[in-house]
Amino acid sequence: MSIAERMHQLGKQARDSARFLAQATTRQKNSALLAIAHTLRQQELQIMAANADDLANAKAAGLPEAMLDRLALDTQRFAAMLEGLMQVIELPDPIGEISQLRYRPSGIQVGQMRVPLGVVGIIYESRPNVTIEAAALCLKSANACILRGGSESIATNCALARAISTALAASDLPATAVQLVDTTDRTAVDLLVSMADYVDVIVPRGGKNLIARVSALAKVPVIKHLDGICHVYIHQEAELDMACKIVLNAKTQRYGVCNAMETLLIDQAIAADALACVVPALHDRGVELRGCALSRQLAPNIEKSATDEDWSTEYLAPILSIRIVDHLEAAMQHINTYGSHHTDAIITQNYAAARRFLQEVDSGSVMVNASTRFADGFEYGLGAEIGISTDKFHARGPVGLEGLTSLKWIVLGQGQVRGE
Amino acid sequence: MSIAERMHQLGKQARDSARFLAQATTRQKNSALLAIAHTLRQQELQIMAANADDLANAKAAGLPEAMLDRLALDTQRFAAMLEGLMQVIELPDPIGEISQLRYRPSGIQVGQMRVPLGVVGIIYESRPNVTIEAAALCLKSANACILRGGSESIATNCALARAISTALAASDLPATAVQLVDTTDRTAVDLLVSMADYVDVIVPRGGKNLIARVSALAKVPVIKHLDGICHVYIHQEAELDMACKIVLNAKTQRYGVCNAMETLLIDQAIAADALACVVPALHDRGVELRGCALSRQLAPNIEKSATDEDWSTEYLAPILSIRIVDHLEAAMQHINTYGSHHTDAIITQNYAAARRFLQEVDSGSVMVNASTRFADGFEYGLGAEIGISTDKFHARGPVGLEGLTSLKWIVLGQGQVRGE
Repeated sequence: MSIAERMHQLGKQARDSARFLAQATTRQKNSALLAIAHTLRQQELQIMAANADDLANAKAAGLPEAMLDRLALDTQRFAAMLEGLMQVIELPDPIGEISQLRYRPSGIQVGQMRVPLGVVGIIYESRPNVTIEAAALCLKSANACILRGGSESIATNCALARAISTALAASDLPATAVQLVDTTDRTAVDLLVSMADYVDVIVPRGGKNLIARVSALAKVPVIKHLDGICHVYIHQEAELDMACKIVLNAKTQRYGVCNAMETLLIDQAIAADALACVVPALHDRGVELRGCALSRQLAPNIEKSATDEDWSTEYLAPILSIRIVDHLEAAMQHINTYGSHHTDAIITQNYAAARRFLQEVDSGSVMVNASTRFADGFEYGLGAEIGISTDKFHARGPVGLEGLTSLKWIVLGQGQVRGE
Repeated sequence: MSIAERMHQLGKQARDSARFLAQATTRQKNSALLAIAHTLRQQELQIMAANADDLANAKAAGLPEAMLDRLALDTQRFAAMLEGLMQVIELPDPIGEISQLRYRPSGIQVGQMRVPLGVVGIIYESRPNVTIEAAALCLKSANACILRGGSESIATNCALARAISTALAASDLPATAVQLVDTTDRTAVDLLVSMADYVDVIVPRGGKNLIARVSALAKVPVIKHLDGICHVYIHQEAELDMACKIVLNAKTQRYGVCNAMETLLIDQAIAADALACVVPALHDRGVELRGCALSRQLAPNIEKSATDEDWSTEYLAPILSIRIVDHLEAAMQHINTYGSHHTDAIITQNYAAARRFLQEVDSGSVMVNASTRFADGFEYGLGAEIGISTDKFHARGPVGLEGLTSLKWIVLGQGQVRGE
């Protein structure tokens, strides 16, 4: 079978499964998820063996340490994967919920019912836990899914997918509700994102290159996550202790994550004091600082000058750019110009400034007096997230179960017809 | 200026206006809408003269009567246009609304704020009233818009756009918040739908060809409206009087509209009685019937046989296809296979059948005991609609102000940082 035929087959099977899944009860979906957890536990040894194969190949191919780390499963991570599944079981079922049912003057009742999107295609890097997480979120939201993990994790993913299929085959849900693209050929991705008849939405989880490629080729809507160029702005009425604590957390709690701060903006009225506080603390943690001219005048130990390129760079590393701004307005303009509409925070005790920042900063998450690191499905109470969207269409910010659903209108009448 | 330069200019101006509009107060937006209504009234004579020119050209070009009718403005239609504007003023302002603000275990408060999408591109046929309706809905939802009406209405639209600009220039909102593409060159459309930097969503309102062309070229999300192949299904436990009344209304109240019924499905258990009731009534109104073999056996006065093509045809005319189905399941399968996911209704007194139909029919609007003609923004209480979506992504069914908005996350803290 050619790749095109195989993808067509996966698509058709997913579409058929989706019709069935949409009618599944909460109990059926939860039982299937539980069965998947059991089967994974039973097949832990085989899955670990497959992962060891993947790791050996990846090492032989000279993959960087960070990628090997993401690829590796161990007992603890395996347990965390199962724990994640159990958490999805406990999430409320969004499907079928009817909202805003109200009478209209014509006598009809109009409301909206939450329904699945249908078939979700997920393209991700070599992180085996995403296979389970994505499958669980899709099943719970009654969507069929087609998963395409990174090629380095193919053996692990095939082992995981076998366990899922085995569990589904013994459940009330179709075995093809979750399918893995079982080839590492890249044309499979190109086909997946263009099968508009079979796929309702594509969620690319991965680096910029992947997302750019998917966006360019997609004939299907994409829940896009571009850069995470997040800002913290220390307003002139910030409490400095709080500001310093949040700045440290936003930059240094983890470096390689999209909701870490990449640029610190400081109001000129408070700049000297703020720099005196944050610069040594950031240096203590080994963060390289790149400042605007004024910031380097005020804090000569800022080691580098920031260029225009720095303002639009997602470092994902212990590097931070710093800019002194004249006022709130200038801070917001910087964020809306150079940011990536991901997550931005203001530190202030001023009510009006907080209110304007919330309203005028055009990002998926806008925060007052909190670390940008909170921008995450779990922290927001979504249970888990399928991705973080930097788009405005359909879903913004962390996307949980609800982002995988849609609302259809329902009308309840008793014989009403429309007049002229 | 080349067309590309002109479109680029419109896009840039729209983007700049959108930033400003997003911060406008409800009062500023309503005042601007009121000012537009006043200016339109003042310039009624000039607008009517421009419309007369358009009509003369269209007649000379031999446009069909139906298109001339859509193009023509008269005193009554002009008044209706202004009345529509006043109705949009009275709609609640969706922007800035904060929902579901709740505390999380970390101590942060998380909620969602409704914000505009940004810049909306609307491409429509030669119906001048859409110019005003679209502009009003976009302004009220704080979106800048770029309007591209049919080429036959260019003089009317330019006159309307002049009135809008005049009113906006004297208001608190930017004069470029509403802009008209002032060329009839078709490449303008191709440019408009591919300016992803400047345009956030495209709403094509028009025939299949337009929508197909826009979808093929678009680099921007599209709120698509494909066919309106709507069904009424007479279940075996339908009240026949009600069924007949709804069938007549859904088919004959207006023919050229997307929410008119195109196929009637009848449960075989009730087929003879139902046909005896609806066939003469439909014939009385001059509707041509095309039936399946069984229906023609039961009602030999059904004049034509329906082919497979009929099941997927949107007649928009006094033609109806009729099919006898074995049971509810078969009806739903027919609808999900041949329908266009627009609007479908069941007529029944059976609770379980109604419930299953609501749940399992995969359409933007699903109805029980009501005419499909109700699928409309006004009837649903949205005030007005910018379009009807047959997609699932972002918006389904009639799209009102809310469909032109998005939700961003807001986080209110008091110094919270994220722990490991």
